[in-house]
Amino acid sequence: METQNEQQKASIQSLEWRGDHLRILDQTFLPSRTVFSDLRDVGRVWDAIKKLRVRGAPAIGIAASYGFYMGLKDVADENFSSFWIEVQRIAEYLGSSRPTAVNLFWALDRIKNSIYAIKDKPIPEIKEHVLKIAKTIHDEDRRVCKQIGLNGQTLIGKKAKILTHCNTGSLATSEFGTALSMIYHAHIGGKNIHVWVDETRPLLQGARLTAWELTQAEIPMALITDSMAGFLMKQGKVDLIVVGTDRVAANGDMANKIGTYSLAVLAKAHNIPFYVAAPLSSMDMSISSGDEIPIEERDGKEIYEIGGSKIAPDRIPTYNPAFDVTPAELITAYITEKGIIKPDFATNLKALF
Amino acid sequence: METQNEQQKASIQSLEWRGDHLRILDQTFLPSRTVFSDLRDVGRVWDAIKKLRVRGAPAIGIAASYGFYMGLKDVADENFSSFWIEVQRIAEYLGSSRPTAVNLFWALDRIKNSIYAIKDKPIPEIKEHVLKIAKTIHDEDRRVCKQIGLNGQTLIGKKAKILTHCNTGSLATSEFGTALSMIYHAHIGGKNIHVWVDETRPLLQGARLTAWELTQAEIPMALITDSMAGFLMKQGKVDLIVVGTDRVAANGDMANKIGTYSLAVLAKAHNIPFYVAAPLSSMDMSISSGDEIPIEERDGKEIYEIGGSKIAPDRIPTYNPAFDVTPAELITAYITEKGIIKPDFATNLKALF
Repeated sequence: METQNEQQKASIQSLEWRGDHLRILDQTFLPSRTVFSDLRDVGRVWDAIKKLRVRGAPAIGIAASYGFYMGLKDVADENFSSFWIEVQRIAEYLGSSRPTAVNLFWALDRIKNSIYAIKDKPIPEIKEHVLKIAKTIHDEDRRVCKQIGLNGQTLIGKKAKILTHCNTGSLATSEFGTALSMIYHAHIGGKNIHVWVDETRPLLQGARLTAWELTQAEIPMALITDSMAGFLMKQGKVDLIVVGTDRVAANGDMANKIGTYSLAVLAKAHNIPFYVAAPLSSMDMSISSGDEIPIEERDGKEIYEIGGSKIAPDRIPTYNPAFDVTPAELITAYITEKGIIKPDFATNLKALF
Repeated sequence: METQNEQQKASIQSLEWRGDHLRILDQTFLPSRTVFSDLRDVGRVWDAIKKLRVRGAPAIGIAASYGFYMGLKDVADENFSSFWIEVQRIAEYLGSSRPTAVNLFWALDRIKNSIYAIKDKPIPEIKEHVLKIAKTIHDEDRRVCKQIGLNGQTLIGKKAKILTHCNTGSLATSEFGTALSMIYHAHIGGKNIHVWVDETRPLLQGARLTAWELTQAEIPMALITDSMAGFLMKQGKVDLIVVGTDRVAANGDMANKIGTYSLAVLAKAHNIPFYVAAPLSSMDMSISSGDEIPIEERDGKEIYEIGGSKIAPDRIPTYNPAFDVTPAELITAYITEKGIIKPDFATNLKALF
């Protein structure tokens, strides 16, 4: 199974179901140490999500699904009504681990609905069904990520120099990731690529996580500060840019990690393609434009404190938006599991749904 | 002397000659502690420059000048030829403290030439002359910085929101600085300004030094990561950008701290004026364009280590240019001690010299 081996080498498994428990790659130790943790009950899963040992919206949804199964496994089998009370209690408990994570609630609701749909079956059978759904959620994400990578790698030249921002890889998903999946698949396909990794201040997901993933996969790369991207483009050292997204509006505007908008403007000024990898689940057709996407402002500590050391005067005022909005006209194409979507996005995104 | 008081409040003295010794504000303790050090001999001055206790090209030149005087003060007065040997020895010694600093050699050469020009005078008189030149170099820088500020503040509106990069203030010069001098003088003049301070990765001069200076002067400000500047512009939160420069070419291209080029492209895309504060001493008419300016690449440690903690995997490849080059067409105007220079720069810069 050569292809399988190649893939193993190219992509880290951040989550793995091992018969009766979930093994996770604990992201709080990265990049200095690679620590896997075995989570054997729902409490440990709750804790892992809470403490960001698992992060990235798809990865959180998957972990919670397995946690749901482990929480239900030892509940008494007598009757459905007492079982159902436990189902609701566990869903609420897991939901409290990271209350803003959309994928978490989506996964919990999906499992609750499936349980209720077969409420007349024997309870042991229902329990096994929950594990099956958890595995399905995991598998579906794996397929979506892989397909985005396969679709997107066609846009990457044989010797492409690719710039990326934040972490959109295996650590945030089941496997391969979204934007990073394009890069993994170009590499697996034998292309001689080089990746520029934006460190991604303030939380340094590029430096801590993407640089680590690419190093593991032996994909040639170099770490830069966010402020260097423009100068690289000016020197002709960037052939294309690939990023992920948190939410796409119906007109093709999209929100992503702070710094993405600047990259898109710089890409346009240098005539460099700017691609956004986006599973259909991140497209929100109920929102007409990016103006309607609320921008979360986070604690200034993320800016003035790094790894426990203060880099600026005490009580300094800051402005710390976690995301920015990139307008549709700066985006060359969206890469989805259903194919590559080009402008006019308003029309072409609508056609997908 | 109300004006004097206002200025005292608005600008830190990073260097002060106190009759028989030099007092410096030790920048290695900033921003957590404000420590002044009294340097009473040439060895201490050498050490202060070497260890970046004094930094910024003009500030280094001034400190070295006073150090030169302190080094010569106790040299035997017998005859000029033995005195001259000491002059050369001390100049060489001070020059070894920071071999790439242009202002350092410029100051040392100026003093050496002045000594030689009066070699027939009594040696005690020559020594006093050296102190006088050191004070002149200090005063000249003060006048240049102040005049840049006075000239430049006319470009700043009454409620301007100004974005700046790196540290171009009192800490890098005798007083007020260059780009920051425009900001200080707008504030002293009663304008109700707000300053966005780019943290300026990798070495964080914005977060560590500019944020500290503006806090001391009670000028309203907020610290941001470099990646946030574009999104601020998009939201209409930036009225103008002011930066300094390390070297201006005859055609108006210029080199400055990495990240400056990206800001200039973003400014153009958002129709925001992009001003460069530049003493005439930073203009190099021997260089026809920015392509001829060599770009120093520095150690990757500056990127993957912050305040002693590692933010990326070990032995990660990096790219770390310390400067970038901004082409003339992205620059709205140069602010000099001789006035505001607008395009066509090739013609108008030449006319200055």
